[in-house]
Amino acid sequence: MQRYKITIEYLGTNFKGWQKQKKCKTIQETFEKATKKLVKEDVNSYVAGRTDSGVHAFGQVVHLDIRKKIENSKFKMGLNYYLSREKFGSDISVKEVKKVTKTFNARFSAIKKHYQYKIFNSDHRSPILDSSSWWVKKKLDLSSMKLGAMQFLGNHNFNSFRAKGCQAGSPIKTINKVTISKGRDLITINFFARSFLYNQVRIMVGTLQDVGLGRIKHEEIKKIIDMKNRSYAGITAPAKGLTLVKVFY
Amino acid sequence: MQRYKITIEYLGTNFKGWQKQKKCKTIQETFEKATKKLVKEDVNSYVAGRTDSGVHAFGQVVHLDIRKKIENSKFKMGLNYYLSREKFGSDISVKEVKKVTKTFNARFSAIKKHYQYKIFNSDHRSPILDSSSWWVKKKLDLSSMKLGAMQFLGNHNFNSFRAKGCQAGSPIKTINKVTISKGRDLITINFFARSFLYNQVRIMVGTLQDVGLGRIKHEEIKKIIDMKNRSYAGITAPAKGLTLVKVFY
Repeated sequence: MQRYKITIEYLGTNFKGWQKQKKCKTIQETFEKATKKLVKEDVNSYVAGRTDSGVHAFGQVVHLDIRKKIENSKFKMGLNYYLSREKFGSDISVKEVKKVTKTFNARFSAIKKHYQYKIFNSDHRSPILDSSSWWVKKKLDLSSMKLGAMQFLGNHNFNSFRAKGCQAGSPIKTINKVTISKGRDLITINFFARSFLYNQVRIMVGTLQDVGLGRIKHEEIKKIIDMKNRSYAGITAPAKGLTLVKVFY
Repeated sequence: MQRYKITIEYLGTNFKGWQKQKKCKTIQETFEKATKKLVKEDVNSYVAGRTDSGVHAFGQVVHLDIRKKIENSKFKMGLNYYLSREKFGSDISVKEVKKVTKTFNARFSAIKKHYQYKIFNSDHRSPILDSSSWWVKKKLDLSSMKLGAMQFLGNHNFNSFRAKGCQAGSPIKTINKVTISKGRDLITINFFARSFLYNQVRIMVGTLQDVGLGRIKHEEIKKIIDMKNRSYAGITAPAKGLTLVKVFY
């Protein structure tokens, strides 16, 4: 058996997230179906970050083991060919295929992940950006949001920022870096951490919205973290604004 | 009657272009329907640049005359409300409404238009950029394309670069500025001119592709212009890569 590391891009809009489910079109199912057609053997894929319904990925990483010997470039080309023939398969693209050793694990070998969230902040919606951003109509105060975001930095118990159904053993996570910038009406927030809790990024963004709207003060983020209770944090920001940009190994 | 200048953004994907047609969903029809619902009178809209099926606009401009007196901000809000209730209406957004004098004409008062074309140049497609770019698989040579593009500058007979059905009286046009840049795998080409012939930008881009692929030399663009014959130019690049960015008055 040979292990492969496969980097993929996808538009999450038409999928019910990464993970296989009954009766739902998912990225994993579509990806594995195309892979089986190519290599003609059963395939189980393991992903770096299981993205939710509607979340996009610019650089998601998957690993899988197959018996068949196949060159990296042929694997990539073949997979893209079979993906394009699946329903919504063109919403997934293989960017890179690399042979790796059995010690490589897409999820557990990752040392850092970069997630990006986009907010379109204007009194009118943006049809062009609609599928990749959250439309917030009321003016957001960027400098308060910046101050608020900095409080997420470091090692914390993020219990206030995880959704029901989160399967992580511990709510303790370390955020290494957060950046917020604005160009025209588009606010871009970048989060870097080894791993995140379920919906953590989207709940952090929902809470930053409250800061930007002046509903809560930027200092209060620290208090919300200290409460360790989901009900104190803001809403879960919509999935479509979120993209898994890169997984670092 | 009061004349209004209305700036709109739209995602062209789901429309058969700007202009009203029988049995087809167009931007003009959707826009006028929403306007009629708001102002409760018949409306005829006149546009700066009639975009084709699939072409997007970041800053298209429309003018129309109505009897009803209505404030700019209320007109904008009301239009966005009624648009959101039309089928595909959320793919159109009103960015600005301004009262103007009867001398203003969205098309004829324009002194410059900015069109942008995006090429995704990579061995794999980009699901995220797919609706707003043309995927060209083979590597394009950017420096040749830059040299080629410069030959479009100035006043020329662009008969080689207009589609059948072009209704312009004269094929003589002046290109004021062209820029080409590349970030990652995305090539962005900007064209500035008072006006363009039917499909002119897309045929220029199709011809620049030939230059980038080495099928023709960059100097040959001058010869193709001189031939004044459509058959010498390249293909018409796909609509989805094209966006009308701004109309200047």
